[in-house]
Formats: sequence, C-alpha cells, structure tokens
Amino acid sequence: MTDKPENFFNINDKEAGNYRKLGEGLTSRLFPGDQAMISVVRIEPNAEGTLHHHEEEQWGFLVEGSALRTQGDEQIKVKAGGFWRTPSNVPHTIKAGPDGAVVFDVFAPPRKAYLKPARDLGSKGT
Amino acid sequence: MTDKPENFFNINDKEAGNYRKLGEGLTSRLFPGDQAMISVVRIEPNAEGTLHHHEEEQWGFLVEGSALRTQGDEQIKVKAGGFWRTPSNVPHTIKAGPDGAVVFDVFAPPRKAYLKPARDLGSKGT
Repeated sequence: MTDKPENFFNINDKEAGNYRKLGEGLTSRLFPGDQAMISVVRIEPNAEGTLHHHEEEQWGFLVEGSALRTQGDEQIKVKAGGFWRTPSNVPHTIKAGPDGAVVFDVFAPPRKAYLKPARDLGSKGT
Repeated sequence: MTDKPENFFNINDKEAGNYRKLGEGLTSRLFPGDQAMISVVRIEPNAEGTLHHHEEEQWGFLVEGSALRTQGDEQIKVKAGGFWRTPSNVPHTIKAGPDGAVVFDVFAPPRKAYLKPARDLGSKGT
C-alpha cells in the first residue's frame, strides 16, 4: 500500500493538478497525460463559460450539481451522472444550475492551450 | 431543448452504449469517440478483473463504491471521487469493495480491442 502514489488523485483534493481560472466563477485543476488530459472543473451557481471551440475531442461527466450544456445548435439540460461527447471543433459552453456544478472533463489529445502557462482570465471553458 | 440528443448519455442508462461482459461480475457499456472511448464499468461486490495491459492510455474515475486498484507494483485503495491515470502498457486490474464499484473509464486513443465484436468472456477489464 502507498499513501500518495503517482497517478492517483481525488476530485476533492484542491491542491492537486495545475490550477487555472477559466472565467468568472469557473476554475479548473488540470492533469495532463500523454494521450488525454483531465480537467476537474468547478462552476459556481449560475456561472457560465463563453462559447468556444477547439480541435481536441472533449468528453464531460457531470459529477455534482446540474448544468445547461450548449453544444452546436443544441441546449441540453444535464444532471449528475450525465456525460457527453463534444466532437472536434464543435462550439460549446456550459452554465451551472442553481447549486453549481463539478465536471470531470477529458481532452483527447491533451488540450494544447492548457499546457501553456495559465492566464487568470481570458481562457474559455469548459 | 432536445430530449434524446446525440452525444449525451447517462451512466445509469442501462441501454446506452455497447454492452460487453469483461469477466465474472464485471460489465461495461462502451461509448467510442474519435480520440477517446468511454467505458462505464460496473463491478459486483468483491469481484475482480484479471491483470492485463494495453497500448492505450487509460484514466479511471470511481463514481460509486470502493475499489482496490492494482497498477504496476502498487495496490491502491480508491473511494468515490478518486481518479487515476494508467500509462501505456502498465499492467493493471481492479477489485471492487464490499459494495461494488462503478467506474467511468477513458481510453485514449479508443481501445482497439473493444471496437471488435464483444465476446462474453475472455476479455480482461477494467
């Protein structure tokens, strides 16, 4: 048994990963791998990102709370246990419900923009 | 608003994805993408997989229950909210705790072996 093994994390560990503020009320902790990158995103109640797109495929899993996902021409209500695929270059954003949201996001391949040093604002997520 | 949009799923939907039995007490529902594949794995109490490895990078997120993850030379206790990276070709398996386990697994790139028609047994997961 090992207490702090490499490659093992917990979404409730606020010190793990690389912190990045994605926008007002949206923060991420990033965990880059070789073929994929995890982004644990916390969204404050009713906060929302900005519509954006990127080449990397994205999958999101809603761990806690509720959200309205905008993706392409659709707006989809999501609750905990919901997950979704965002194909390459499809415009998307998310707005948390009244209790906020925690999202386990996956980028494949690792999102290049998030491998650069973080800016506190101006990035767009999730 | 759309009720059944493409690319939106729920881990509790027992009809979604491609069903695959991974072993005794281990089942998966698979959701292939272009750059990554999701595998929602359900493990019965105290059931375990077989040590195996593959080229694809894997990430796992423990949604429910508890588990003992074997990875390389380590055995790591994981509880809900825990997640981990399994680098390419590192041998691994998992054993559920007394209440079973639900794992949101990610393969990047999509796991080739799971794109083939499923066999009911003989596959090794998770």
